[in-house]
Amino acid sequence: MAIVLGLPKGSLQESTFALFKRAGFNVSCSSRSYIPSIDDEEIKCRLLRPQEMSRYVELGLLDAGICGYDWVYENGSDIEEVCELNYSKATSNPVRWVLAVPEDSKIKKVEDLQGKRISTEAIGLTKRYLKKHGVKADVEFSWGATEVKAPELVDAIVDLTETGSSLRANKLRIVDTILTSTTRLIANKKSWKNAAKRAKLEQLKMLLTGALEAQRRVLLKCNAPAKALDKVVKVMPALHAPTVNQLHGGEWYAVESVVEERLVRDLIPQLTKAGATGIIELPLNKIIF
Amino acid sequence: MAIVLGLPKGSLQESTFALFKRAGFNVSCSSRSYIPSIDDEEIKCRLLRPQEMSRYVELGLLDAGICGYDWVYENGSDIEEVCELNYSKATSNPVRWVLAVPEDSKIKKVEDLQGKRISTEAIGLTKRYLKKHGVKADVEFSWGATEVKAPELVDAIVDLTETGSSLRANKLRIVDTILTSTTRLIANKKSWKNAAKRAKLEQLKMLLTGALEAQRRVLLKCNAPAKALDKVVKVMPALHAPTVNQLHGGEWYAVESVVEERLVRDLIPQLTKAGATGIIELPLNKIIF
Amino acid sequence: MAIVLGLPKGSLQESTFALFKRAGFNVSCSSRSYIPSIDDEEIKCRLLRPQEMSRYVELGLLDAGICGYDWVYENGSDIEEVCELNYSKATSNPVRWVLAVPEDSKIKKVEDLQGKRISTEAIGLTKRYLKKHGVKADVEFSWGATEVKAPELVDAIVDLTETGSSLRANKLRIVDTILTSTTRLIANKKSWKNAAKRAKLEQLKMLLTGALEAQRRVLLKCNAPAKALDKVVKVMPALHAPTVNQLHGGEWYAVESVVEERLVRDLIPQLTKAGATGIIELPLNKIIF
Amino acid sequence: MAIVLGLPKGSLQESTFALFKRAGFNVSCSSRSYIPSIDDEEIKCRLLRPQEMSRYVELGLLDAGICGYDWVYENGSDIEEVCELNYSKATSNPVRWVLAVPEDSKIKKVEDLQGKRISTEAIGLTKRYLKKHGVKADVEFSWGATEVKAPELVDAIVDLTETGSSLRANKLRIVDTILTSTTRLIANKKSWKNAAKRAKLEQLKMLLTGALEAQRRVLLKCNAPAKALDKVVKVMPALHAPTVNQLHGGEWYAVESVVEERLVRDLIPQLTKAGATGIIELPLNKIIF
Amino acid sequence: MAIVLGLPKGSLQESTFALFKRAGFNVSCSSRSYIPSIDDEEIKCRLLRPQEMSRYVELGLLDAGICGYDWVYENGSDIEEVCELNYSKATSNPVRWVLAVPEDSKIKKVEDLQGKRISTEAIGLTKRYLKKHGVKADVEFSWGATEVKAPELVDAIVDLTETGSSLRANKLRIVDTILTSTTRLIANKKSWKNAAKRAKLEQLKMLLTGALEAQRRVLLKCNAPAKALDKVVKVMPALHAPTVNQLHGGEWYAVESVVEERLVRDLIPQLTKAGATGIIELPLNKIIF
Amino acid sequence: MAIVLGLPKGSLQESTFALFKRAGFNVSCSSRSYIPSIDDEEIKCRLLRPQEMSRYVELGLLDAGICGYDWVYENGSDIEEVCELNYSKATSNPVRWVLAVPEDSKIKKVEDLQGKRISTEAIGLTKRYLKKHGVKADVEFSWGATEVKAPELVDAIVDLTETGSSLRANKLRIVDTILTSTTRLIANKKSWKNAAKRAKLEQLKMLLTGALEAQRRVLLKCNAPAKALDKVVKVMPALHAPTVNQLHGGEWYAVESVVEERLVRDLIPQLTKAGATGIIELPLNKIIF
Repeated sequence: MAIVLGLPKGSLQESTFALFKRAGFNVSCSSRSYIPSIDDEEIKCRLLRPQEMSRYVELGLLDAGICGYDWVYENGSDIEEVCELNYSKATSNPVRWVLAVPEDSKIKKVEDLQGKRISTEAIGLTKRYLKKHGVKADVEFSWGATEVKAPELVDAIVDLTETGSSLRANKLRIVDTILTSTTRLIANKKSWKNAAKRAKLEQLKMLLTGALEAQRRVLLKCNAPAKALDKVVKVMPALHAPTVNQLHGGEWYAVESVVEERLVRDLIPQLTKAGATGIIELPLNKIIF
Repeated sequence: MAIVLGLPKGSLQESTFALFKRAGFNVSCSSRSYIPSIDDEEIKCRLLRPQEMSRYVELGLLDAGICGYDWVYENGSDIEEVCELNYSKATSNPVRWVLAVPEDSKIKKVEDLQGKRISTEAIGLTKRYLKKHGVKADVEFSWGATEVKAPELVDAIVDLTETGSSLRANKLRIVDTILTSTTRLIANKKSWKNAAKRAKLEQLKMLLTGALEAQRRVLLKCNAPAKALDKVVKVMPALHAPTVNQLHGGEWYAVESVVEERLVRDLIPQLTKAGATGIIELPLNKIIF
Repeated sequence: MAIVLGLPKGSLQESTFALFKRAGFNVSCSSRSYIPSIDDEEIKCRLLRPQEMSRYVELGLLDAGICGYDWVYENGSDIEEVCELNYSKATSNPVRWVLAVPEDSKIKKVEDLQGKRISTEAIGLTKRYLKKHGVKADVEFSWGATEVKAPELVDAIVDLTETGSSLRANKLRIVDTILTSTTRLIANKKSWKNAAKRAKLEQLKMLLTGALEAQRRVLLKCNAPAKALDKVVKVMPALHAPTVNQLHGGEWYAVESVVEERLVRDLIPQLTKAGATGIIELPLNKIIF
Repeated sequence: MAIVLGLPKGSLQESTFALFKRAGFNVSCSSRSYIPSIDDEEIKCRLLRPQEMSRYVELGLLDAGICGYDWVYENGSDIEEVCELNYSKATSNPVRWVLAVPEDSKIKKVEDLQGKRISTEAIGLTKRYLKKHGVKADVEFSWGATEVKAPELVDAIVDLTETGSSLRANKLRIVDTILTSTTRLIANKKSWKNAAKRAKLEQLKMLLTGALEAQRRVLLKCNAPAKALDKVVKVMPALHAPTVNQLHGGEWYAVESVVEERLVRDLIPQLTKAGATGIIELPLNKIIF
Repeated sequence: MAIVLGLPKGSLQESTFALFKRAGFNVSCSSRSYIPSIDDEEIKCRLLRPQEMSRYVELGLLDAGICGYDWVYENGSDIEEVCELNYSKATSNPVRWVLAVPEDSKIKKVEDLQGKRISTEAIGLTKRYLKKHGVKADVEFSWGATEVKAPELVDAIVDLTETGSSLRANKLRIVDTILTSTTRLIANKKSWKNAAKRAKLEQLKMLLTGALEAQRRVLLKCNAPAKALDKVVKVMPALHAPTVNQLHGGEWYAVESVVEERLVRDLIPQLTKAGATGIIELPLNKIIF
Repeated sequence: MAIVLGLPKGSLQESTFALFKRAGFNVSCSSRSYIPSIDDEEIKCRLLRPQEMSRYVELGLLDAGICGYDWVYENGSDIEEVCELNYSKATSNPVRWVLAVPEDSKIKKVEDLQGKRISTEAIGLTKRYLKKHGVKADVEFSWGATEVKAPELVDAIVDLTETGSSLRANKLRIVDTILTSTTRLIANKKSWKNAAKRAKLEQLKMLLTGALEAQRRVLLKCNAPAKALDKVVKVMPALHAPTVNQLHGGEWYAVESVVEERLVRDLIPQLTKAGATGIIELPLNKIIF
């Protein structure tokens, strides 16, 4: 029995395929097809726009799918969230849906939108947000290039931003952040209750998060003389404790630990100071705590 | 007083700029901007998705715009149609919105769609079409790649096709053609009644259609001796009559006519046979009958 | 009844399609297909390697084809040559098959090849050439990059050259030119005897050569006062005589002639000197004398 | 005897080769060479940076060259200016060397530069400009990306601009325009006095300016009935008068004239109104008045 | 003393250079050269078409070469096969030479080819195959695009396929597989008997196969408490046994093993279940058992 | 307190960003900006031409910068050299500034340049070199393509070369090597004396050199039975001694060492011979001795 898994077509596609590769699955797709091949007989893949993913997962046409939380929310889909997968297009920051207006607009807060026209690709999200704040406004569907529409064609926009640079380039000011979103593995509720399907989804979760964790971590190894061992071990961060191993001859110890890569640049000077030598850093493919 | 003119962003953009160039207007646009520059002080250009064009023309935010008839119809916009502009992406054929189903589907006519699910980018068009045929069905907005959704995710699609090749490649069968569409120059109704704006729009119409006509025609010139003149003139097609001109010396005549390029390949052997010599064909930039 | 016409796949394909376009035929082909579409119901196109063209024309699987004379000769095909078409990849020079050896080789003439090893893509051509000179040598088929094989792997090569620059870059010296070749329109002998097919081939010949001639020529027009007319007419080259036309009012004459473009740069100063004014040069699409 | 002619390497190279092509000279150059081939035995070409052109023309290592007036001025070269050639990279506007400072700088006029640091690629030009205004400042040679250096690294820059958009993007304000420059054909003074070389340079001038003029002009033709002839002729602009020609039969006249392309869009409605029919516009290769 | 080694030019070139890089040899080649540089004084490289490799290895012009077994067989070359190198263009599947016919052809088995015409790039292979089956047919050399020739130009083809997708796209049916082929390191028989050359070839074999093996394997490490050690070791696959190492303190063990990457996704859940923690996977450059 | 660090714009930019990535710093820069972002609050980056780097470091506008030694020398800048960073564009060879002349020039040594013209981008370097040798010559600034200027425009050039291939292609002969240069991390002298800034610079030095060293090294691991341990340890190179570790059970030892990658291809056969099994090679990110 195989699960049918939706993968996101578009800007996330390449990084999703790369993530699966690191997790141990070879996924490939000819340019015009929407049926990627995968080297696991228990998985059937489909490529879908992230905007439509949760709709078909909810209907059960897919057992599971990968897409942003924003589109689950926009569609109001009733699905099971399996786990967060912390990766996106350019950076590891979450994307945000923001309400933005021209820099010199008089609109300073959501309440100033009363009776105005707003352009957005996320109609549902925007309407629920306005309703929550008791504001009535015209919400128009945008077919793209939303950020160039204000102020000539509309008064405000609700758009996606990762770094804010496109908004700045179009001289827009953020009034409010409506939703912060990251990528998720979601499942159909019935599939999630099916034992075999759930086991497969748990395996996927373990391997995908293991591959993501490994990207942010490295294996750090060093040697320490007996007298410096305590200091070195103290400096070396570890989930439990670093792995320590007495070397042949007895006077030296090998210390190794999986550490976050962003800490290494400060850690290395400290290890050196503590008496460690022969420090080496190795890349990881996967890590399961 | 200048008119504000919407030009289509996307697949038609490059050919629209080229058409304006041939019509005598230099339009250019840096890649990230939506405000093209044009060397005519009486025109201000804006780049917009064709899907949104008629909406903003109707509201009067644009005086005029260029877009497909399909989106005028989809939006149900109340605008003035100035003229048809017979050009599109790849060929000079009109595009069609068709109802298509998988090749082996049991759906043979629109009535078989009762209770089915249909995916399309043109929600309004599809709903009006179904209503006209008294059919009730689920119509879902498609975020793209509509042609790969049937049969797995939906029962039928309503999609755009120029040559039908993408449908065939996805093993879809056309059930019905819902709408045939070509590009149009449309105007806001109030702007059309303004004399100065209308004069500018009439000039645009004359030059744009003149440039389009010229692309399909050439100037054919040949010489004929006095005795062959009648035959040559008879063979040469012309709106009224070919231009005939007696040459210095008196025994030869120059005959020239603007003819459709697609006729030339059969015309040349006939002219030769009729006695014409020195046949030359010249390209045209514009033609106004 | 349609003729089946072979068009050359590869380096000549793009320029062949462009030539047909200028001749009045729209030929197009999706990248993976070998059946180009053409807007003439009397022609069916096939894309074939030029090396194989004459083989299939001779067999009658194609009525006609376009390829270099070299491959007609290499294959020893018994076909009808309809006309020369003077175009090729980069320049309008004919290509040459040459016998070449390393710059410092002791081989100075074909007779020195006795007992040597020669690499070439044109086995038949090379063997016939050697036989004619009474030389016995090993001739090996080359799968490409022939010009880098001497002297390490073979003693000499027989290879195609247009400008000689690739030979020079590989430090090879030309010993002899074996064959000079240009592109040809060739026909199956039986098809050529069929009246309907021949008429179509004659039309193709007229339009293709007319388009090629037009590329090398322009229409030159100028005005001349009555007193300077003779001088101007004398300077202006023409197949017969320039077209002279007395203008309204009677004191001026318009003189026009189709001339080779390469002559224009010297002609213009002479026309100016002879008294011509308002000299203009116009491009041509086709010319049939 | 051939002249040695320097052609500008870099951003002007492609448009220069295209200009020569329209003027009747085929110039081509393999990507790594600086010796272009040209199909005229009386010309030898060399590719050089425009910055160095006038230096080598002055020394007589080149007989003539094409480069911007700005670099002639920067180098202070003593050469003969043959003619202006009105073309450049993107538009037909002249380029300008401007003094620019950060938008919020206190520097408002050249005198405020006293004691400041300025970065520029045109050291000579900048120093002469400062001297003329009695200002002493540090002028540093810029190796590129001059527009990003202010205000962090320098107080002001002197840089080239065509449209001003790069300056705006870097939030710089223009304080003064130091030099406006167009492309020129320049000659060595001794070569200019040599009769044979001068004749060749005059021919080049005639053909290059003829090709440039033709780009901005078209041939406009129309027919007019006898009664409308005067009106039509009056509307049609012409250097002297339009060419008028009585057609066979006697009741119609053909009127043609070379007109500026930018006028055509207003001219066509006027001609139609005056009674002209069958208006066609043809492109020109060259025009010599 | 250096060996002369032929490397395959064309589709395998890039992956061959990458394989040598992983094996510890830097090979590079400017785009127009056929003499790659390599950072090993005992090897001289030459780039050759795979089709010609075995011919020059047999003649002794190369000491060794890398090419497909198919071309060794096609050429009937008498060489020493050193080892198989399991890599190819896209996948790790071997390529196949197949006999294929149009889907609707009446040809069902090789015997049906009697008197037919067959196109192929592998003339020798095809003729030997036909002879073995007692079939007489016309075998024509194909200059490329073999798969589009049937049924119009020939009755059947013999062509190379990796996934069969090109055959399916051209509506061809496989009748028989004639030869299955993988890449090989081959040597001249005399060179193989020379002790010094053979030592070098053995080193190449060890490093190239070591790099290929490493691509399909990873290093898996985990920790196990004393009580879980047996279970964990039992789960962990290893050529002999996993490497087990008692950690400082004595209660934990480090277990590591080189395992096939394709097994990891099932292994990790099993290791977790067996009591392992801190599972990490590291990439390998080379592995020599 | 943050340091301001100049990174080289141009050919070294991409490899510099990659080096920082391996050292643990994420640097990125949008294409038109010169202010890269870096994920370290103690560093502010600026992109600058390497030619200008030392000038702004000396002035204190930058605390430190990365550039070639050649431009430090050319500018005669008074800065602190922190360390050498052994990387460059294509290879790990240092670049050289050489004096070169046409192959057939009579100039054989620097003294022959008396009274000649020399073109170069490094005016200061060249003048100091000539002065040292007591030679007077004209030194002209070259705006690029220096290697094509001799002999037509100048007698000799002083230019940068990595492999000499561009010089050979232009038929130039090297007369003398004036300067050999590698990349350096340089600091402003005052910043170097500031304790906080110096600590940051020392950290950068440790991590950047650690990342560079790691590129040329790998971790080699193998197992050895007790009886072969001495032999294996003796063969294995190590800065101090290889890390030896007795495995669980006591009969086997794990031996590992960081070794230079270029040695591995000879080391592996020796280790095998010495009795080692299960040899694996792992890539390194960083190494600090």
